[in-house]
Amino acid sequence: MPFHISAELSYTVLHRSTVLLNLHALSTPNQTLTDESFTITEGVTCECFPIEAGENRYARIDTCGLKRVAITYSVTAETRPSARHLHEIDRVPVARLERRALPYLYPSRYCQSDRLGRLAAKQFAHIRHPLAQAAAISDWIFENIDYLPATTDSGTSAFDTVTQRAGVCRDFAHLAIAFCRALSIPARYFSGYACQMEFPDFHACFEACVGNQWFIFDPTRLSSPNGLVRIATGRDAADASFATIFGSMRLDSMKVSCTAVDFQPLSRSELEGKAVLLEP
Amino acid sequence: MPFHISAELSYTVLHRSTVLLNLHALSTPNQTLTDESFTITEGVTCECFPIEAGENRYARIDTCGLKRVAITYSVTAETRPSARHLHEIDRVPVARLERRALPYLYPSRYCQSDRLGRLAAKQFAHIRHPLAQAAAISDWIFENIDYLPATTDSGTSAFDTVTQRAGVCRDFAHLAIAFCRALSIPARYFSGYACQMEFPDFHACFEACVGNQWFIFDPTRLSSPNGLVRIATGRDAADASFATIFGSMRLDSMKVSCTAVDFQPLSRSELEGKAVLLEP
Amino acid sequence: MPFHISAELSYTVLHRSTVLLNLHALSTPNQTLTDESFTITEGVTCECFPIEAGENRYARIDTCGLKRVAITYSVTAETRPSARHLHEIDRVPVARLERRALPYLYPSRYCQSDRLGRLAAKQFAHIRHPLAQAAAISDWIFENIDYLPATTDSGTSAFDTVTQRAGVCRDFAHLAIAFCRALSIPARYFSGYACQMEFPDFHACFEACVGNQWFIFDPTRLSSPNGLVRIATGRDAADASFATIFGSMRLDSMKVSCTAVDFQPLSRSELEGKAVLLEP
Amino acid sequence: MPFHISAELSYTVLHRSTVLLNLHALSTPNQTLTDESFTITEGVTCECFPIEAGENRYARIDTCGLKRVAITYSVTAETRPSARHLHEIDRVPVARLERRALPYLYPSRYCQSDRLGRLAAKQFAHIRHPLAQAAAISDWIFENIDYLPATTDSGTSAFDTVTQRAGVCRDFAHLAIAFCRALSIPARYFSGYACQMEFPDFHACFEACVGNQWFIFDPTRLSSPNGLVRIATGRDAADASFATIFGSMRLDSMKVSCTAVDFQPLSRSELEGKAVLLEP
Repeated sequence: MPFHISAELSYTVLHRSTVLLNLHALSTPNQTLTDESFTITEGVTCECFPIEAGENRYARIDTCGLKRVAITYSVTAETRPSARHLHEIDRVPVARLERRALPYLYPSRYCQSDRLGRLAAKQFAHIRHPLAQAAAISDWIFENIDYLPATTDSGTSAFDTVTQRAGVCRDFAHLAIAFCRALSIPARYFSGYACQMEFPDFHACFEACVGNQWFIFDPTRLSSPNGLVRIATGRDAADASFATIFGSMRLDSMKVSCTAVDFQPLSRSELEGKAVLLEP
Repeated sequence: MPFHISAELSYTVLHRSTVLLNLHALSTPNQTLTDESFTITEGVTCECFPIEAGENRYARIDTCGLKRVAITYSVTAETRPSARHLHEIDRVPVARLERRALPYLYPSRYCQSDRLGRLAAKQFAHIRHPLAQAAAISDWIFENIDYLPATTDSGTSAFDTVTQRAGVCRDFAHLAIAFCRALSIPARYFSGYACQMEFPDFHACFEACVGNQWFIFDPTRLSSPNGLVRIATGRDAADASFATIFGSMRLDSMKVSCTAVDFQPLSRSELEGKAVLLEP
Repeated sequence: MPFHISAELSYTVLHRSTVLLNLHALSTPNQTLTDESFTITEGVTCECFPIEAGENRYARIDTCGLKRVAITYSVTAETRPSARHLHEIDRVPVARLERRALPYLYPSRYCQSDRLGRLAAKQFAHIRHPLAQAAAISDWIFENIDYLPATTDSGTSAFDTVTQRAGVCRDFAHLAIAFCRALSIPARYFSGYACQMEFPDFHACFEACVGNQWFIFDPTRLSSPNGLVRIATGRDAADASFATIFGSMRLDSMKVSCTAVDFQPLSRSELEGKAVLLEP
Repeated sequence: MPFHISAELSYTVLHRSTVLLNLHALSTPNQTLTDESFTITEGVTCECFPIEAGENRYARIDTCGLKRVAITYSVTAETRPSARHLHEIDRVPVARLERRALPYLYPSRYCQSDRLGRLAAKQFAHIRHPLAQAAAISDWIFENIDYLPATTDSGTSAFDTVTQRAGVCRDFAHLAIAFCRALSIPARYFSGYACQMEFPDFHACFEACVGNQWFIFDPTRLSSPNGLVRIATGRDAADASFATIFGSMRLDSMKVSCTAVDFQPLSRSELEGKAVLLEP
């Protein structure tokens, strides 16, 4: 199903700045892009390239002498998510994890898995299959953390959220990732576009690696796994910020849209006992 | 100058465990390895491989049924560090940083540069050249943080150290990295062996990227830059832990040694106005 | 000099609530009150009384069935601050501190002096007289912390502020208190009204106990010590919050005023080498 | 029942120091002291007095020129705890709390109730009676926090413990107090001697104020409420530290003992549906 995506950002430049943008959708085996367009106010310097081991796409912009910068991005993305039954997925111990999953076992800026070990074990260690653990983590967060915009900020981390019990998609994902890693399940941050969100915005979810496959979960339940388009993969939001500014700029407006004709989110019952892979 | 390195680790296995070891020296353009030997108690499963975008070398060990595991590593490493005068090095703004340095601008688990911006600016922004800033950061840490083993633990981060003012090499490096990134200087963690340390152990320093070159600093002043052999490069200690245990093992003994015949550490006056590159 | 003080608060009651108000000025040997008036919307239950060992004055209000509550307070307060030369004040060691100062040596919610010991010693231990230390602490905070409304919240403590380097009067006072206690100088929180503040509001300062006398300092430099009227004394803002709500109410408006005819703030030069006592 | 209590402390003085000791048992309506003895190495200056609004007893010691200081304390204490059925105790809202309980509603150094509100509400707000809430908090802590000496230190607070899930009696009490206050139940720290502890030491519990009476709970379950002798009452351990040192001393040995002939701890079934008051 093709998703029509657009993002429009408009900034006032207070001092000449460099911006790293990370809002381009990724082209992957299961995510095909067409009609991609990226425009930016004339007069800036801009280059686009991948970083982070070739995965994420960045645009680096030098505002040069401009006082206002407007950015528009649009693309059509077709995705091919697939669902697996939990019992189809093997447990793979750390001893046999594929190597590229190993970095996702370690704590990161917003996911202090090293300080959550005892809590994660008490809450989830009785669940036997790691994929069921990841699903239980996602459910626990949905049930125990309140989705409340403006209660957290860019410094909020999993260690805060587990006690303060409020946050937004980013905080939900960070806590889930921290719990997974504390249980020796590699987990990573997913940033992307999500179809039919009530308040359209950039979205964040998490992926857990079980049986050397990466399963996607949204602990906010604001999106459906068949409505997600990937922008970036990272250890946490520090790897996948949609805009990082070196200098001084003010965001004046932002408009994000992701739509599809006849989109049907997967129901809770369709997902019962299953988990979804975005990539093979 | 050839450095003779050895490390011996001995563990009691409490429950079958998987260990990720990161104590092999790296082979790089400026670091040549000979006579490398890695042995481990027979009966374990062990594989050696690089991770983190091909940089660091890991050994993954499954203890299988063993109750005790002993590991010995030895190697002879020849390094070719070189010094540059500060005035030889150009200032390169973020807009022209080489792409692989960009990930080192972001905060990480132990280096919360996002919360240190105002402090870093007050302390170091008046220094004009970023390489002089990095040197000033290293000096400030040496002068203001007490080197005190056993006052910190594996959860201690730069945000704690800047206030608590005590720690070990790892804490010194984390604070330096956080300050650099807060000033938009890419900075990374260096773990390695150091010649002629008074209490031989694994050592940690930091590298700052200026003019698209990586300069090494040791804010503890326990090592000399011409006496360092690199094991790993990372965002912080989470990327370069010498041993990560999944399961339950107890470290019974550890012996690290790094020696060279006729080694002369660089004096403070030889380093005056200069900084050292380990790699070209 | 008589200060004319008024405070007006207006709340919407979302659920029946109990409020503890702490905005009455104190009557003390050096602070005389006249023409005091406290009115509140009819229909609430209200009692006024001192707590905290007889020091601070509280009004406890039960909103009963009301949906809106308005509070007005006014008073005329005459104060008699006095200045002392630093050399007039003896150093009194902890061994001879008066007993009622001892509780102000311990850490409190927002003043984690127990974690700031090393930093305080490095920064201020070279200053010999404790009153000069307290003055230096006040100056250091003025110079190193940015007065920036809306960068902190009610959870911000000295441990955060010393690194984040921004805050409001409450944060400035907390950090000063924590530094003093870390140097074994008893220190306490002062909440009050301040004459001629550019943006009139409840104000916070700190008092340091030297020679068994309590000297007042305002690290924000927004007030002058001869323009202060005391509401409360406490370990930190947890003891001196102007309003604590049990239930759910929304503050709709707040207006604070403190004026005096012909008020002249003490100049920096008049205060040179001196410190001010509000009470004998 | 008379408890025979003794405490012996022995210190090496590194630099002349002042010590505030808080290990004398309190004399209260329900706690009668006989045969009290307090001795200290000759040559120090020592005075004994109450602080904190007349409640706790302190000994202030100046080590003068001594290099070693030994302290011995012994007393016989008779207590008269009494049990109440939960249904005998009225719910008293904040609007009718006795005034001296009000300070125990606010957050303190180690009990950040202001950051635990949402979590406390989710976990305990469905329980209707505040005394049942306090009992549930004590049980929850016993079940969810591991009693593990040496995993925490004097800087550990409730905000850490709720996530890290390990600690000692002090940490257990801090978390309980923070939860109670977050639910608008006044709660305070109890330090004392406890009969028949497996590893005799100073002990900490908490008291919750319901119906304007203070009920004692021990979330570690290491003591029984009929085996407790009160030393001090405070907001948290900052108010009730058994020894605070200004200067530099090393604790060489400590021996605490609290015994009674034929002591029978109350069983869980005797306590079912009840709570215990130490004072009327």
